Amino acid sequence: MITTDILIIGAGPTGLFAVFEAGLLKLKCHIIDALPQPGGQLAELYPKKPIFDIPGYPSVMAGELVDNLMEQIKQFQPGFTLNERAETIDKLEDGTFIVTTNKGTKHHAKAVAIAGGLGSFEPRKPLIENIADYEEKGVEYFVKKPEIFEGKRVVIAGGGDSALDWSIFLSNVASEVTLVHRRNEFRGALDSVEKVQELKKLGKINLITPAEVKAIKGEEKVESLVIEREGEEMIVETDYFIPLFGLTPKLGPIADWGLEIEKNAIKVNNALDYQTNIEGVYAIGDVNTYPGKLKLILCGFHEATLMCQSVYNRLNPGKKYVLKYTTVSGVNGFDGTRKEAEKQVVKAIE
Amino acid sequence: MITTDILIIGAGPTGLFAVFEAGLLKLKCHIIDALPQPGGQLAELYPKKPIFDIPGYPSVMAGELVDNLMEQIKQFQPGFTLNERAETIDKLEDGTFIVTTNKGTKHHAKAVAIAGGLGSFEPRKPLIENIADYEEKGVEYFVKKPEIFEGKRVVIAGGGDSALDWSIFLSNVASEVTLVHRRNEFRGALDSVEKVQELKKLGKINLITPAEVKAIKGEEKVESLVIEREGEEMIVETDYFIPLFGLTPKLGPIADWGLEIEKNAIKVNNALDYQTNIEGVYAIGDVNTYPGKLKLILCGFHEATLMCQSVYNRLNPGKKYVLKYTTVSGVNGFDGTRKEAEKQVVKAIE
Repeated sequence: MITTDILIIGAGPTGLFAVFEAGLLKLKCHIIDALPQPGGQLAELYPKKPIFDIPGYPSVMAGELVDNLMEQIKQFQPGFTLNERAETIDKLEDGTFIVTTNKGTKHHAKAVAIAGGLGSFEPRKPLIENIADYEEKGVEYFVKKPEIFEGKRVVIAGGGDSALDWSIFLSNVASEVTLVHRRNEFRGALDSVEKVQELKKLGKINLITPAEVKAIKGEEKVESLVIEREGEEMIVETDYFIPLFGLTPKLGPIADWGLEIEKNAIKVNNALDYQTNIEGVYAIGDVNTYPGKLKLILCGFHEATLMCQSVYNRLNPGKKYVLKYTTVSGVNGFDGTRKEAEKQVVKAIE
Repeated sequence: MITTDILIIGAGPTGLFAVFEAGLLKLKCHIIDALPQPGGQLAELYPKKPIFDIPGYPSVMAGELVDNLMEQIKQFQPGFTLNERAETIDKLEDGTFIVTTNKGTKHHAKAVAIAGGLGSFEPRKPLIENIADYEEKGVEYFVKKPEIFEGKRVVIAGGGDSALDWSIFLSNVASEVTLVHRRNEFRGALDSVEKVQELKKLGKINLITPAEVKAIKGEEKVESLVIEREGEEMIVETDYFIPLFGLTPKLGPIADWGLEIEKNAIKVNNALDYQTNIEGVYAIGDVNTYPGKLKLILCGFHEATLMCQSVYNRLNPGKKYVLKYTTVSGVNGFDGTRKEAEKQVVKAIE
């Protein structure tokens, strides 16, 4: 059982920043996310694209913002349960919560902050009858650990940036990379398209277009794929099949937690602390809704901050502690570090 | 008469960022500030001190944050009325406003956003009977344009960072710099104290301590000061007298605008759009108050954003326009610039 003060569901920018504000109040955080790495959409969908509306950043790459947030919260040593989806919530008699993931990991927390963005990102799966039988047996919807493909044969399916970029990357890792797409045209950064073109010419990527993977064959695990190109079927032997058809956000199991939902978002009390209808459960960032709500990262930062203050007050009734200016009071990390502005001296000049 | 869509009172980080969000909605902004430069407290009081709680910045110098915000809003060409204090407000029959400064400058705006921080920063003035007679005639409470001191004799009074730093700076500009402080001990960055010590030894700064300026003399303008040291009076001839005794924030004339005030802050509707009791007048950042309010820069950014959206809806009733992700839709500056993420291409690989 993992125990923490605030359990944050969702490792996007809002969830990550909540760790910082909680840390200033000496509250410990643990984050669950269905994706294999922190950062949410920013890391998974557009790490190399610029964002222009983060205050104080005329422009920042989404991936760089995630790196900076990770650096900012490092001192407060958040825990992570990645690659798992929060599935059920139970409120105990003492007002604390147990949240269990789809893999059975249990988390015990004094408060829960849902920072789920547009929902958990589920891979769009190809319509292949028996694909579920081969999941984790050669079928991978994410490239979580590129090193597992070393010296293996992989078939990637898809026509967007992910399919292009992972084909390029794995052409240096796998023994054989085949890229299958149902059109001849790819949609992605010009750079990536040109790079794949080049690698194809060098024989480092086999390209099969316009074509679709129709069936998976293999005893215990993936051994070969049936691929149809222009009405003709062919068999391609492979160790891995990686369909990269994008992600669709789904509110998922959270929708059944008894929360007030409106337009696929969780209603919160924006006049006070972004708490939901369940006391002790908050919703912050794009996942929540209230009158005038704007789904912007900078709004999530504010909501995360007020949530932390509310949790603090709930856990410490009657005790007053308002977040101070960090410039004046410094920041004490849980890891023993301290950040502070250079001290002034009082010194005579003779 | 200056005309604009949103008149922002206060050029601190919240006021500056409002220009950006307004710009995304094609609303023009003009900013009034009592200080000689944008940035509010950050620029005036602690430009070289780090802030640790700006989301995405593990640490950022206050002055650097201001520079970055100025860079971010440049494309939306805000107007500035600096060195003037907003004094009176008049609401016209059509719901627009005229705001007049202490120097008589008039601004006509469709909405007013008070982003006044802790109030307008007024210099603490020394208790010298006739000092008001010499204001702008040799007595300066801020160093607005260092170049006016070129080749002149200046006397600076004070014992903090401002007094130390300007003495150092002006020792290379003025013909003669005298620093007067009522104690022998100075309170400031170690660096600055040591630098003044050194410049004193080199004869580039005259130090008179423990001493106080007791009187100002001169026909039309400052000609000399009477300084008392340990019970003895001396006359020091000078062209300028710069008392740097710090700033005190004052809500000032805004307190008389008919706004609901609570604990020296302006009450706003935080459940919707940070509007005050006067329709069309908003209060954002440290100057406002509501249940659970935290006086943090990142909260001001959020409040500024919701304020802009509300102004847009007020000026364009029935028209729907929600702030979009800048990564997806790009940013069109009023200066003709356009910022956008690299476009994807659709391209065949042969």
